Amino acid sequence: MKEVEKKKYPHKHILGIEGLLPPDINYLLNLSEKFSLQLSKREKSSFLSNKTCINLFFENSTRTRTSFELAGKKLSADILNISVSSSSIKKGETLIDTAMTLNAMQPDILVVRHPDAGAVQLLSEKVNCSVINAGDGPHEHPTQALLDALTILRRKKVISGLKVAICGDILHSRVARSNIHLLTTLGAEVRVIAPNTLIPYGIENLGVRVYNDMRLGIKDVDIIIMLRLQLERMSGSYVPSIREYFRFFGLDREKLNYAKNDALILHPGPMNRGVEIDSELADDLDRTAIFEQVQLGVAVRMACLYALLENKK
Amino acid sequence: MKEVEKKKYPHKHILGIEGLLPPDINYLLNLSEKFSLQLSKREKSSFLSNKTCINLFFENSTRTRTSFELAGKKLSADILNISVSSSSIKKGETLIDTAMTLNAMQPDILVVRHPDAGAVQLLSEKVNCSVINAGDGPHEHPTQALLDALTILRRKKVISGLKVAICGDILHSRVARSNIHLLTTLGAEVRVIAPNTLIPYGIENLGVRVYNDMRLGIKDVDIIIMLRLQLERMSGSYVPSIREYFRFFGLDREKLNYAKNDALILHPGPMNRGVEIDSELADDLDRTAIFEQVQLGVAVRMACLYALLENKK
Amino acid sequence: MKEVEKKKYPHKHILGIEGLLPPDINYLLNLSEKFSLQLSKREKSSFLSNKTCINLFFENSTRTRTSFELAGKKLSADILNISVSSSSIKKGETLIDTAMTLNAMQPDILVVRHPDAGAVQLLSEKVNCSVINAGDGPHEHPTQALLDALTILRRKKVISGLKVAICGDILHSRVARSNIHLLTTLGAEVRVIAPNTLIPYGIENLGVRVYNDMRLGIKDVDIIIMLRLQLERMSGSYVPSIREYFRFFGLDREKLNYAKNDALILHPGPMNRGVEIDSELADDLDRTAIFEQVQLGVAVRMACLYALLENKK
Repeated sequence: MKEVEKKKYPHKHILGIEGLLPPDINYLLNLSEKFSLQLSKREKSSFLSNKTCINLFFENSTRTRTSFELAGKKLSADILNISVSSSSIKKGETLIDTAMTLNAMQPDILVVRHPDAGAVQLLSEKVNCSVINAGDGPHEHPTQALLDALTILRRKKVISGLKVAICGDILHSRVARSNIHLLTTLGAEVRVIAPNTLIPYGIENLGVRVYNDMRLGIKDVDIIIMLRLQLERMSGSYVPSIREYFRFFGLDREKLNYAKNDALILHPGPMNRGVEIDSELADDLDRTAIFEQVQLGVAVRMACLYALLENKK
Repeated sequence: MKEVEKKKYPHKHILGIEGLLPPDINYLLNLSEKFSLQLSKREKSSFLSNKTCINLFFENSTRTRTSFELAGKKLSADILNISVSSSSIKKGETLIDTAMTLNAMQPDILVVRHPDAGAVQLLSEKVNCSVINAGDGPHEHPTQALLDALTILRRKKVISGLKVAICGDILHSRVARSNIHLLTTLGAEVRVIAPNTLIPYGIENLGVRVYNDMRLGIKDVDIIIMLRLQLERMSGSYVPSIREYFRFFGLDREKLNYAKNDALILHPGPMNRGVEIDSELADDLDRTAIFEQVQLGVAVRMACLYALLENKK
Repeated sequence: MKEVEKKKYPHKHILGIEGLLPPDINYLLNLSEKFSLQLSKREKSSFLSNKTCINLFFENSTRTRTSFELAGKKLSADILNISVSSSSIKKGETLIDTAMTLNAMQPDILVVRHPDAGAVQLLSEKVNCSVINAGDGPHEHPTQALLDALTILRRKKVISGLKVAICGDILHSRVARSNIHLLTTLGAEVRVIAPNTLIPYGIENLGVRVYNDMRLGIKDVDIIIMLRLQLERMSGSYVPSIREYFRFFGLDREKLNYAKNDALILHPGPMNRGVEIDSELADDLDRTAIFEQVQLGVAVRMACLYALLENKK
């Protein structure tokens, strides 16, 4: 591990997990562990005390924005939050002009969420500063995959060799995509479980197996990652009804019995209780790691901010 | 007073004034005085420099949120503002899950405003950190009552024995309820004045006398607390018309003559000039303490943040 | 220059450029140059570490608010952002009461944007703290004019004697008005170019020449300041169509040929590409200084905050 640490993170941006090598991922996870330790001691560090970090959110996200803001503040960075609503977009400025304008203010990092896949990458090509993708449409959400991996490592020690089922709205989920890249890169066996309407075409090419039957899909798995059914984006044609969805794809004790005895349940939040997960099961802190994920998320974001800026100090 | 100070504030949360003992209230008021002195010297302290405070507002409130934010910053805490609009609530996450998620980020204090009575208490039972109620529906708004008390103390030296009239929309007012608890606990005689439609059933059980006639109600009082008529929440059935309301329950010079010569007027703001208070009278800084209340509000919130965290240092 | 610097900025507020003398303007521009140097070294200073700055925006403005926020943070001030939407205004509080309430929280500076001309001046008369006008309706936007001047100075060394054309929606533009005052005060020759519907009555009294023909107007100028066509405020009667507007008043290479060979193009942003400026031309960093303006804007706002508070240290 010492030798790993001597290397710095080799990329300018964190735009996605796809394309990262195991040492890149492990470098970020090791750093995250250190920052997690710092947080548990309730300490603050001054690593980024001259740095400016702009959170540029073209989509609302209390959870992710707050996590990045807290991460930056615990490193003593100056944090600016910019929320670009659809009404501002109407003012007529292009994404690139917005990015170039903020870039001209000379921040050190832009953390960007955008509803369109690829928008964050495009933006990163135009600016001088480092960019972290905080979610771009259905494409990637790399810090979520990192915090999921850190949570799994905490409980299972290794990722290689684990059987992981990702269950739910795979089609719209950047969380699924980033997790598939990360977990397969580190040697896990990944399955995706969903009705066919929520399985993107060609997903097998990412190295996963597809299941339409949840009991078959979670058989003997170590980890179950439940995805949020994004009710606000669904116009009724993807699933026949919420009730039927829960019956076939909602996680409850009965279906959980098919997984390993010590199978761990993750969920990126916010949860739809009674839709993708049984409410009573969600509260079982022996089986779920939902709030541990949130806690480790701050450490992961500290690691990402730090990794991109340590070369510039 | 020295012995009072040796004791720390004995509660984990500040959810309401109801149930606090005189030493609890006096402890917070004494601390507030000290922080008021610090503010008047325009100094900043580093008491909370490793602490994180999250302002979680399920209802808009520029005034209260800003006051808490400033209080935290003057103590060098890291402050995060989260405004949960009705649209986010629709995303399907429960109040408790939102609270647990933020709790997982390990803040030291959550300052919470919520439109429903009891929501802040419920939330406080689920989280590890301390919670301050910044207003929960028509229930309590403890920091407002504390800053009102501090304002009264500044001008009248004592609270015990004072005659205080609270006038206006008692039914919907958390300010009224918190003030009734605080003022009666410290020995003031409290009256409430309103049309019967704006008097909650059983309010006499809180130890107050009810008046429907403003001139009788403010006769010989030392303090008049005018409440905001919450026009945006009224659908016309509570008061016949704004004009008639002002005629009978709006404070003007003529009605003020019934109070003591040096009677002091408080108002929690924002004011509806010409509705519950005559506009010219509102500007008479000899009679009103409206902006002094705002000023002392910052000191009171510093005291509350400090009191809850001094044991954790 | 040394003697200029010994004098402090003589005014309590920065409400507009109108009425400022050349030494006032030069003092702010010299300070801005220093802060620009500090920013280019990526340093932070602690000049305002005990100070509180409130950004009070009655109109949305990501760009200006972010610039002021960053400026304050680079000087270590505590910054509070308050965005007063039209819905809050409906709550019934007057502008003055909002201002007095914030004033009671004892900030050192209020930075105010308001949709009505004169509102910021009115507010400044009621508060104790210093006020910076961040744009009041079609009236003034002094920090924009200062950053435009700083950009011009960087490229042209002097302002006196330059020929400057301001082109576009002069009628609604506070940027035009502040720039006219600043540039004429420092000895530039200023022209305004627009269709007659977008020329305010009596604008010649400010010492400018009016052109309705863009080619005549920009003939031999050194600087072209293009204004944003505020599409969201236009109900169709000001310009016949966007396409026709671009044909006659949009800046493209053909029209640019009438200006001096080294004429510099400014734009306050956000740009409407293809409306007031040709998109390809906007990206020509040899001819335009659009992002340099944004960069220098942070330094200018640092200078303004500093200049108003250095006497209070």
